[in-house]
Amino acid sequence: MAKFGYIGLGHRGTGMLKNILECFKDVEIVAICDLMEERIEEAKKLFEENSISVPFSTTNEDEFFDVEMDGVFIMTYWESHIPLAIKAMKKGIPPAIEVGGAYSIKECYDLLDTYEETGIHVMMLENCCYGKDELAVLKMVREGIFGTIVHCSGGYHHELLYEVSHGVQRKHYRLRNYISRNCDNYPTHELGPIAKVLNINRGNRMLQLNSVASKAVGLAEYVKEHQDTLSHLNDTVFNQGDIITTIITCANGETITLTLDTTLPRFYSRGFTVRGTKGGFFEDGDTYYLEAEREEYEKDCEWIHFCWQKNYGNGEEMRKKYKHPLWEKHGDAAATSGHDGMDYMVLAAYIESIEKKATPPIDTYDTVTWMAITPLSEQSIKMGGAPVAIPDFTKGKWAMPREKSDLEFALD
Amino acid sequence: MAKFGYIGLGHRGTGMLKNILECFKDVEIVAICDLMEERIEEAKKLFEENSISVPFSTTNEDEFFDVEMDGVFIMTYWESHIPLAIKAMKKGIPPAIEVGGAYSIKECYDLLDTYEETGIHVMMLENCCYGKDELAVLKMVREGIFGTIVHCSGGYHHELLYEVSHGVQRKHYRLRNYISRNCDNYPTHELGPIAKVLNINRGNRMLQLNSVASKAVGLAEYVKEHQDTLSHLNDTVFNQGDIITTIITCANGETITLTLDTTLPRFYSRGFTVRGTKGGFFEDGDTYYLEAEREEYEKDCEWIHFCWQKNYGNGEEMRKKYKHPLWEKHGDAAATSGHDGMDYMVLAAYIESIEKKATPPIDTYDTVTWMAITPLSEQSIKMGGAPVAIPDFTKGKWAMPREKSDLEFALD
Repeated sequence: MAKFGYIGLGHRGTGMLKNILECFKDVEIVAICDLMEERIEEAKKLFEENSISVPFSTTNEDEFFDVEMDGVFIMTYWESHIPLAIKAMKKGIPPAIEVGGAYSIKECYDLLDTYEETGIHVMMLENCCYGKDELAVLKMVREGIFGTIVHCSGGYHHELLYEVSHGVQRKHYRLRNYISRNCDNYPTHELGPIAKVLNINRGNRMLQLNSVASKAVGLAEYVKEHQDTLSHLNDTVFNQGDIITTIITCANGETITLTLDTTLPRFYSRGFTVRGTKGGFFEDGDTYYLEAEREEYEKDCEWIHFCWQKNYGNGEEMRKKYKHPLWEKHGDAAATSGHDGMDYMVLAAYIESIEKKATPPIDTYDTVTWMAITPLSEQSIKMGGAPVAIPDFTKGKWAMPREKSDLEFALD
Repeated sequence: MAKFGYIGLGHRGTGMLKNILECFKDVEIVAICDLMEERIEEAKKLFEENSISVPFSTTNEDEFFDVEMDGVFIMTYWESHIPLAIKAMKKGIPPAIEVGGAYSIKECYDLLDTYEETGIHVMMLENCCYGKDELAVLKMVREGIFGTIVHCSGGYHHELLYEVSHGVQRKHYRLRNYISRNCDNYPTHELGPIAKVLNINRGNRMLQLNSVASKAVGLAEYVKEHQDTLSHLNDTVFNQGDIITTIITCANGETITLTLDTTLPRFYSRGFTVRGTKGGFFEDGDTYYLEAEREEYEKDCEWIHFCWQKNYGNGEEMRKKYKHPLWEKHGDAAATSGHDGMDYMVLAAYIESIEKKATPPIDTYDTVTWMAITPLSEQSIKMGGAPVAIPDFTKGKWAMPREKSDLEFALD
């Protein structure tokens, strides 16, 4: 039975811990850690509720890492992901980190250097790589159903006005980021799944980006309208633009459009879109288009170009038809976990890599490549969307042949 | 009864002529012109079918412009729009031009100079400004329902593989453009309606753009697969990237994302999206989001962010609720005209401006500002998406107070 540490017991940390305790009975949590004692107390209750003996707990991260563990979940605030991952890797523990962006290219290289020195990988827990649409699309792309892939887009379209301004559970890592920075601060939904579709670091790489920010008015207006709880923010200037649009260009000629969209009201979407010469997927519209079905589409339609409405919502049918083997096999087990089952999938992927001592499906190269988009977008925005080079963290290995992973949760 | 000339009798020209003859009984077409005699013969039949006496016709544009006319429809190939418009304006005839992009900034200034010298405006027939969603959204924006507008997006998402490669009715203006250029060659769907939403040239202006192209593979693969009709294009290199993404930044801090998307298979969409601090519209998803309705949305939903699906398709209901007065009044008359009635609306707008000798709702400043995006995007693409300045064609007048138009078809 693999032993894991668990650090970071805020809103997301507690939620994921709950998923683990409820869904993964073969996982032993041997230590928990948070800076705040009261959060630890709340976490202990989760163990008790699941009739699991309460593990060692501490508010001191050094004490925490002194416990013997095979893996560690790092679920802390954004700024600490890379430093804690490095600490774990230096101790020989392959960590999993919650999603987020980096703060500098240097720290991406620090993380990479640590991998290259220790041979220990970090895995980013990018749950969206395991979404139902994302995996169905990945399968279809690999089977060539969409033809040559030319363009992808996606983003984090998630209104967080309350979360950013009030914080969740007393901690405000988002707030300080929205005050101080202006960048795509959360690029990996939906860059992660797109990078997998486009074989980034496995035959392809991201070469450059251009990033542009809209004005920042969403949070300021929200503060004005919530004076009962937010008057202390009246003089706060938010640097973070409401909509950040980033265009990434890949070595093989594909473009990726990425959007951060968290401070204007809307419904949730990841805007996942994949376009090829034989078809595509459109999350907004919930529609798969297959050129092979054109005759079918045209049947009841005077002019195909105007019959979009008719095909709305074939998503359900297509997700069934092209269901990924992982969803076929684990769909029931995943059903009760967070974020429509994606949390189960990504946890299972990490746990598998630890148990089999294998390179995780999202490895150190993926993690740093995706996280680097944040500081690079920050620079491009300040320079009017000027092209900024994306480092080749693989140092040329992206173009070299690479064996496919034989993990069950592989994303090859 | 106002007298009009009509030049350009290709696929689009013939279609629009049909609309005019059928829907506008108070319009007299006094001359028709095309370079190809056989097209003129086909156009004559349209007059006969509508029991209208056949007008003067010629293949010579100088002869054509010698006819006395109050207005002229210029429906020719893209490269000729501006030269023909200038010719008309110099003769004192306010022309209407079909949509398209410019080829250089200089010709935009030539068109503008001609207006400033003659006082004669050109109107671009940007029919999408009069779409049902576009006008409902414009009304809602003006009423403040979406709050402060922060970001818009849209594009020409229209698969034209057959049209570009085969040409329509023997003429190939698209083909030569897709071979020689790499740019947003057709920006005004959906820049036109977005410019109206954002008050471009009327209190706001577009300051810069960044434009990036994907690789060009759609047409080449299409040629390979249609050897029966397209083998003569086997050695043709298409410069035009399949997906062009352009980000425009406005003086008042808004961003616009514009997409050209014409050579990969898909259903038609203009991807019209308007985002404000109180709500927005999403063409893909056919959904209007109103912050004022949040409680209503949340009623049957555990967590609002995941209840997008539930609200799909409130478009129909919202288009009814926020129907624009123009659609209220002219919807029945427009119903039989092309492009879901938009063609009727934009023709009526131009005809009204001629009959009332008034500045058209899309004037010379709008026309050149929108058309300029094409050559500017071409430059930015070649420079890796580097920021390119968008000229202030109004020479500062955009920030000066301007009287509202009292035309019925105004877009103020």
